[in-house]
Amino acid sequence: MTKTIICVMGPGEQAKARDLQNAYELGCLIAQEGWILLTGGRNAGVMDAANQGAKSADGLTLGILPGCDRNNISNYVDIAIFTDMGSARNNINVLSSNVVIACGMGAGTASEIALAIKGNKPVILLTDDRESQAFFKKLSPDNVYIVESAVDAIAIAKSLVK
Amino acid sequence: MTKTIICVMGPGEQAKARDLQNAYELGCLIAQEGWILLTGGRNAGVMDAANQGAKSADGLTLGILPGCDRNNISNYVDIAIFTDMGSARNNINVLSSNVVIACGMGAGTASEIALAIKGNKPVILLTDDRESQAFFKKLSPDNVYIVESAVDAIAIAKSLVK
Amino acid sequence: MTKTIICVMGPGEQAKARDLQNAYELGCLIAQEGWILLTGGRNAGVMDAANQGAKSADGLTLGILPGCDRNNISNYVDIAIFTDMGSARNNINVLSSNVVIACGMGAGTASEIALAIKGNKPVILLTDDRESQAFFKKLSPDNVYIVESAVDAIAIAKSLVK
Amino acid sequence: MTKTIICVMGPGEQAKARDLQNAYELGCLIAQEGWILLTGGRNAGVMDAANQGAKSADGLTLGILPGCDRNNISNYVDIAIFTDMGSARNNINVLSSNVVIACGMGAGTASEIALAIKGNKPVILLTDDRESQAFFKKLSPDNVYIVESAVDAIAIAKSLVK
Repeated sequence: MTKTIICVMGPGEQAKARDLQNAYELGCLIAQEGWILLTGGRNAGVMDAANQGAKSADGLTLGILPGCDRNNISNYVDIAIFTDMGSARNNINVLSSNVVIACGMGAGTASEIALAIKGNKPVILLTDDRESQAFFKKLSPDNVYIVESAVDAIAIAKSLVK
Repeated sequence: MTKTIICVMGPGEQAKARDLQNAYELGCLIAQEGWILLTGGRNAGVMDAANQGAKSADGLTLGILPGCDRNNISNYVDIAIFTDMGSARNNINVLSSNVVIACGMGAGTASEIALAIKGNKPVILLTDDRESQAFFKKLSPDNVYIVESAVDAIAIAKSLVK
Repeated sequence: MTKTIICVMGPGEQAKARDLQNAYELGCLIAQEGWILLTGGRNAGVMDAANQGAKSADGLTLGILPGCDRNNISNYVDIAIFTDMGSARNNINVLSSNVVIACGMGAGTASEIALAIKGNKPVILLTDDRESQAFFKKLSPDNVYIVESAVDAIAIAKSLVK
Repeated sequence: MTKTIICVMGPGEQAKARDLQNAYELGCLIAQEGWILLTGGRNAGVMDAANQGAKSADGLTLGILPGCDRNNISNYVDIAIFTDMGSARNNINVLSSNVVIACGMGAGTASEIALAIKGNKPVILLTDDRESQAFFKKLSPDNVYIVESAVDAIAIAKSLVK
């Protein structure tokens, strides 16, 4: 029986302060549920904050990295997977997750959301970006959930992984 | 000196009649410019129509396929590349193209647009989907172009590959 | 600080009885060292036996699968990564491992050994196939180790991950 | 109807003089058959020499590159596919080819041969490396052909693509 994996994705260097706070809280809550946190694994932005949050709650963290260089890993990643396939690794991130949570918005994040929808994975959007909400909700009305807080995101994730 | 490659992407089985007409016309115009047409290569929707258009004008067509099965190829693909990596091949499509043209909208198409923006590739949107226009234009104001016709798409592509 | 990951690879359906015994023992010894076991994740051959061995010693097991189908996973995999990229995932397996142990021989195994050598990863061969020993040892005299038992393989792995 | 694609692979920077001569001749003969030449696309070793040979005979050349950087392309590649997935692109090379010809030997070349065998593609070995001949012939007696010259390699390829 494999463990439940929840992906938290979001901007790296361009993450906003609020995205980082949400990411930290998401990581913490995911760990408290006993789920594994999966991120893009780099030591930047939402990835790094989510991993830090998960480790603050003694969670297990999995980073799926775009390169093969150990220097770019978040200090809070336990298990590092080196894909050396750049943004194409985004598809692995979503296929390996039971639920995908987008925390903030950017081009890489948008690609992961779209790939998740394509792969029939549920996506939870935690962002105040109205255009992305309108676009992705229209693209997949049944599989996209819009939330206002990390707590709400986890509540929906719990209902989905049951 | 490598040849200019223009990617036309769009829905497969869910393509609308107007998307198919635009795709055929795009393929035809791309071939007339002497450019290579790159698509996802399957015998469905926008991919198939664009390839048919390009062959009607004696163009060269390149299909980057998600699987490794010869049965799913468009009859109008000259050169088939079998990736066997599913939707992750979308990143190869955009990285290999000088300009990316999205004809219609769907989850796979959205992932390619987002990956193109991430990879700093210019993207031309030929769709009447207003939410996607608003979202992607906001995501990358300088690299996303919104057009109303295949002719306009090619005019912009010409200015970009000069 | 990321955890040490040791890859055990080998034939799936064509594995020999001795390969399966070695794989089980390798999995067990890897878990006893506190290392994570990484395999190709399928419920067949060396992959399955190594995972079973690791779980018998309360280890943590990571399966990097070629597809995206939950039906093919070894029952002894804790964390399943779905790549949906077929044999190209072999490169991820070796890049993510500190040491690669080949247990038995076959085409997939040979590709992983060669990719490991290409990626400058140490490779330990536990097989009685003389032609593969001669070939890979010549290909990379300094990075390929030939052993006769699981215990010897682990002894070398310990010296390499220090 | 897609065009016939023949892959020539071999060492990059470590190629021997004889490998380069064979690669040039292979490229030339492949072009004369009207086949497309597929290589790893870099401006080094066997890849570069094969592409140069094919262009000397007015062939069409396809390069499947490991990165996404235009600076490393062979000057004799017509169509460049940028995978940005490192050595994992070797699987694409072999899956997209009707026949795979290995010209010389090295770790990358060995991984492509093994992946070709795994993918049920015929492989022709043009190398004087006896250990690789013994190993791969044993691994796949029916799908591996050992030849002494470029002319012999093409004769076998012709019999296989009929």
